[in-house]
Amino acid sequence: MAKTTEPSPTILENGQPEEQRFTFSQHPTLEDIRKMQAHFTDERDWNQFHQPRNLLLALVGEVGEVAELFQWKGEVAEGLPDWSGKEKEQLSHELSDVLIYLVELAEKCHVDLPQAVLDKMALNRQKYPANKVQGSAKKYTEYQE
Amino acid sequence: MAKTTEPSPTILENGQPEEQRFTFSQHPTLEDIRKMQAHFTDERDWNQFHQPRNLLLALVGEVGEVAELFQWKGEVAEGLPDWSGKEKEQLSHELSDVLIYLVELAEKCHVDLPQAVLDKMALNRQKYPANKVQGSAKKYTEYQE
Amino acid sequence: MAKTTEPSPTILENGQPEEQRFTFSQHPTLEDIRKMQAHFTDERDWNQFHQPRNLLLALVGEVGEVAELFQWKGEVAEGLPDWSGKEKEQLSHELSDVLIYLVELAEKCHVDLPQAVLDKMALNRQKYPANKVQGSAKKYTEYQE
Amino acid sequence: MAKTTEPSPTILENGQPEEQRFTFSQHPTLEDIRKMQAHFTDERDWNQFHQPRNLLLALVGEVGEVAELFQWKGEVAEGLPDWSGKEKEQLSHELSDVLIYLVELAEKCHVDLPQAVLDKMALNRQKYPANKVQGSAKKYTEYQE
Repeated sequence: MAKTTEPSPTILENGQPEEQRFTFSQHPTLEDIRKMQAHFTDERDWNQFHQPRNLLLALVGEVGEVAELFQWKGEVAEGLPDWSGKEKEQLSHELSDVLIYLVELAEKCHVDLPQAVLDKMALNRQKYPANKVQGSAKKYTEYQE
Repeated sequence: MAKTTEPSPTILENGQPEEQRFTFSQHPTLEDIRKMQAHFTDERDWNQFHQPRNLLLALVGEVGEVAELFQWKGEVAEGLPDWSGKEKEQLSHELSDVLIYLVELAEKCHVDLPQAVLDKMALNRQKYPANKVQGSAKKYTEYQE
Repeated sequence: MAKTTEPSPTILENGQPEEQRFTFSQHPTLEDIRKMQAHFTDERDWNQFHQPRNLLLALVGEVGEVAELFQWKGEVAEGLPDWSGKEKEQLSHELSDVLIYLVELAEKCHVDLPQAVLDKMALNRQKYPANKVQGSAKKYTEYQE
Repeated sequence: MAKTTEPSPTILENGQPEEQRFTFSQHPTLEDIRKMQAHFTDERDWNQFHQPRNLLLALVGEVGEVAELFQWKGEVAEGLPDWSGKEKEQLSHELSDVLIYLVELAEKCHVDLPQAVLDKMALNRQKYPANKVQGSAKKYTEYQE
């Protein structure tokens, strides 16, 4: 598991110290992944197959493989406490495949994915103001609609 | 569009200089995105809804919205030359939503997504050796099977 | 709700009389639906857009809309006892859209969907013999793998 | 391939006689399929796993398998003239799996799928009047939005 590099703990509103939360490694970045995957595709002369709609269907296929890992399990708790090591490894592979195709799809569509996420998150903060939607499932669902 | 930070051009096998390719910005990283989304969810007290299977279904919903943008277009060329500015902006929003839910799903499953991608890419390089699969669609398809 | 047309009740192994189970209407058939949708598409001169991959992406979009109805709900019981009438109506619309595109995709791929299902069900009965997989989740999961 | 049972040819607007079009067999109906699948699930004592969200994720998994068959092919013509017999058989299996899970999901949600489709098709005819949307892709896309 990745470690945080935060120098001092900040206590979140839900009372869970930030440094105890699960975090990601700082590397590779999305641009690192894009570059590695571009190199992988170039080396195999596969750009001819990696057109946007082909990549989108490949992404759908990988999302399907993630779904297969969750399909018969009923509700699943955070951290997957009841999953075997093999199941967790399969999940890490399938989530990675989704990310790889998502990155390459964005590249081939000339979408700067890291910057696009910043824009979308700013929109989401406007759309769901924390003080208005805070709390109940009812409000949440209504806002979603 | 993001700029590369490569000091000198490297010529790829397909004859396209690396520095002319579309690239991503170096920031935010996947960990930056994870942290921003965790803060967004905490502030709204929405962790109670963001269980793994809920996030997976939300991811499926966002992939569906990407598919809707591509569904009636037939084949689409790299860079989306025939798309309007509005369509490209919608796509950047929907791809971002897929990434946001993918990152939060990985976090809640305790999968260190950046490191998992490195592992999966190493496996992919082994599974599809460049010198064996290079070139034809036929070989490519067979390897996929 | 549709009524069964069974003349006499048959008791299932799980003790639930067949005639109390939820059933579908006998009409329209899959062929009826195919013909109605073909007429709809012809009338609008939309066959030019209804190529196989376009229909597949439209299907993915509709599955995404079904997912959106389920995404924040946690586990959901048979018959959707906690859903509002409006939610149930939305679900019936989205499931219908999935079926419509599935039927048209099969037609455009020249797959005789009703007969194909019979073949696949026969394979499934062979693959998962009732006397071997009966019962536990463990056996079930192993068979799935 | 299934045969039509139309007694006399009707000429469609696009000049293709109806009786030359690909059609489905009249059986099994959706209710036949529902009943067969219910029997299959009962015999294996699998209703405990076939909750609505589990079935939805299984459906997503099967749609992913359909996508995998189309993902590297670029545009595909009606009737799949370039596909091998084996590929066509795989497609017929995967489309069947999508239908089986769709039918069982509808059953477990108490949606009378055949009747629901009739309702949705009536709505679609209202939403897209043939005389208004007939023809160009531009109009079609605008209506979709």
